Amino acid sequence: MIPLNPSRALDEMKALRALTSDENGNQRVVFTPVWKRAVDFFTAKVDELGLKWRADVAGNLWATLEGERPQTVVIGGHLDSVPNGGWLDGCWNVVAGLEVMRAYKLSGPKPPVTLKVVSWCDEEGARFGRSLFGSSAFSGYLDVEAVKVLKDKDGVTVEQAAREYGIDVNLAPGATAERNDVAAYLELHIEQGPVLEGLGLPLGAVLGTVGVERNVITFHGQAAHSGSTPMNVRKDALLAAGKMAQEIYAIAGRHKGVCTIGSVVTKPGIVTSVVEECTLTLDQRHLDAKELAAMWTEAQGAARKFAAEGSVTVTFSDLWKIYPIPFHPELTEFCDQAIVETVGKSHKLPSGPLHDAAEVCRAGIPTQMLFVQSLRGISHNKIEDTKDEHLLASVTALAKLTEKTIAWVVNKLG
Amino acid sequence: MIPLNPSRALDEMKALRALTSDENGNQRVVFTPVWKRAVDFFTAKVDELGLKWRADVAGNLWATLEGERPQTVVIGGHLDSVPNGGWLDGCWNVVAGLEVMRAYKLSGPKPPVTLKVVSWCDEEGARFGRSLFGSSAFSGYLDVEAVKVLKDKDGVTVEQAAREYGIDVNLAPGATAERNDVAAYLELHIEQGPVLEGLGLPLGAVLGTVGVERNVITFHGQAAHSGSTPMNVRKDALLAAGKMAQEIYAIAGRHKGVCTIGSVVTKPGIVTSVVEECTLTLDQRHLDAKELAAMWTEAQGAARKFAAEGSVTVTFSDLWKIYPIPFHPELTEFCDQAIVETVGKSHKLPSGPLHDAAEVCRAGIPTQMLFVQSLRGISHNKIEDTKDEHLLASVTALAKLTEKTIAWVVNKLG
Repeated sequence: MIPLNPSRALDEMKALRALTSDENGNQRVVFTPVWKRAVDFFTAKVDELGLKWRADVAGNLWATLEGERPQTVVIGGHLDSVPNGGWLDGCWNVVAGLEVMRAYKLSGPKPPVTLKVVSWCDEEGARFGRSLFGSSAFSGYLDVEAVKVLKDKDGVTVEQAAREYGIDVNLAPGATAERNDVAAYLELHIEQGPVLEGLGLPLGAVLGTVGVERNVITFHGQAAHSGSTPMNVRKDALLAAGKMAQEIYAIAGRHKGVCTIGSVVTKPGIVTSVVEECTLTLDQRHLDAKELAAMWTEAQGAARKFAAEGSVTVTFSDLWKIYPIPFHPELTEFCDQAIVETVGKSHKLPSGPLHDAAEVCRAGIPTQMLFVQSLRGISHNKIEDTKDEHLLASVTALAKLTEKTIAWVVNKLG
Repeated sequence: MIPLNPSRALDEMKALRALTSDENGNQRVVFTPVWKRAVDFFTAKVDELGLKWRADVAGNLWATLEGERPQTVVIGGHLDSVPNGGWLDGCWNVVAGLEVMRAYKLSGPKPPVTLKVVSWCDEEGARFGRSLFGSSAFSGYLDVEAVKVLKDKDGVTVEQAAREYGIDVNLAPGATAERNDVAAYLELHIEQGPVLEGLGLPLGAVLGTVGVERNVITFHGQAAHSGSTPMNVRKDALLAAGKMAQEIYAIAGRHKGVCTIGSVVTKPGIVTSVVEECTLTLDQRHLDAKELAAMWTEAQGAARKFAAEGSVTVTFSDLWKIYPIPFHPELTEFCDQAIVETVGKSHKLPSGPLHDAAEVCRAGIPTQMLFVQSLRGISHNKIEDTKDEHLLASVTALAKLTEKTIAWVVNKLG
């Protein structure tokens, strides 16, 4: 049995919070002095363990516990935060991962395969508007020419900011070399949603990150005087939009996905006129690409039907999309078992937000995430929190998942 | 039979259009040189007839054909327009009224009662934001202290602008003196809506001006991440608002009124968040005060129901309201008969927009309006138009209504 000590990880996490938060929340924004404090905290802990660490060409930090074989299981997270962020987001993954690595180190013999903990560089993208910098460099999906010129609100580019911390972003695509020997990737994360809290469960096994279809729907009617225009001759763009606001719940229900109309804009938007033009944004997410495509097809069909019913027309335009990234089915089962062994009951759920794990997964590496409950489903906010008992259980479950994954890798190697 | 010549009125109307329009539409904005051109055109026509005209203390222009008795039937309209307005709005009433007066003058003997044509001052309120200036001075409902300080977009006050044309607005409330001897008031107007065109009818008898209930409804939900928040735990303020967009059609249908949601604002209004707050404006109109009150009560009830269904809350705030002003039932019948005699078929309808007639009516004077069809229901726009044949018929119907009204007044006097 490994000498795992979840309380030690929690104490470290609270120390790191004290070091990097102010009255507005956590301030571990990438390439800033506060972020560097978190990096130094992490590397000092690795040093204490007598293990090696290094930064790769994309600024990802790797701590390594060498095993009997070069094949590697990686536990990942990110030390950066959004401005005024929460204390746990991304950081808890790293601290808990370090505790698992520490337990293996302190247990004495070399593990059968190599174990690494990685802190990915600039997961949030909060400063420059492009998330998953370090992990996309690793996966080979980083478009460095497009990213390096992005500026923060003070006009500082990614290239300039990274150079201050010794990173030449032009070399970042070389981080694909780190993929050598990586046999599996594990990531613990706070859920950042209300599902586990709603179910009364501390932990969940993540099925993958959902695909996103993000589009604009515009209904085109005719402005008309609110006093002199009978109801039955109106071409009311809002009437069709209002029906869409209901319909997305039916579409989401049929496919067990999520659909959100986040913004509605009415023109001319005055009290004395029927709405001539109503523009709404529709964000649809699903773990299954076919279901996601069907949801968007159904939304367009419904919009056309509602437009026809109200004698208005409708147009569509794309905003953004990404395909679903399902995790490794065997690792998902291990995760589920680890959770059951730790807290008695598990739940499998997709991740709505993206994570570094999605980048690693699409590089073809067997990947799995473990969620720990978030209180009130709130993240990216200073009130982001998770119960201590759930954080402690998450370390135990991550260690069990790591054990099972190492055994699986060893077994595959034969 | 009076020597009425509707074509003469239409020719005058077209001459006045040529005098006061540019490529953007009609420019008879109150207290401007173009408006003064229209005033001078009107007074010159009155002079040609050898009749007297004068401006009252509120700037209303009165042309008088003295009858055998001092009791007076008034035909009214307004020479001012909105900027880039239509050629007929308000002005056609005055020109057609003048033709009816001319017919009585040219027919020889004094009419049994006095006949006046009035052009009300600043009906539109387009320049200073307060409509019905002159007619509300007449009715006694003008709050001169509040109005005189209103400014146009160049910072010129009502008081300053009126003084340039010899009007001291401080004296305007004295226009109530003009009510003496006024036994009935008639007003022809373009419909400014699509009802008569939809029915294929040239003319309609107006039942009154509708009452207006104008309110703001705000649904308060909870912002939540569009990816990580399951549909069944959302507190989506837009869902309730979308139901309202449908429901107002049911409410309007039950009560045979009109309801309009003209503006919807969503907060935070971003693609990745469930709508936390959704604010909409609701404009409801009905000719019957009880029905109007019931419509607003039902709207509030529906909003509360939809809020409860979606676990959100709702608040209400007033924007503006005015009671319905029904016209005189006997005069409405005369108007209906005059229309049938002129074009074979009539239709009774309420007026959605307000008119000077509403001010006169609420001063307790028997009042009636006659509508002539508007093409496409469009007004306050350079493409505002009405078929020549309908304009001609409207002069004939106004003359018949005037005859019937004069006979009614004479009969009441005994």
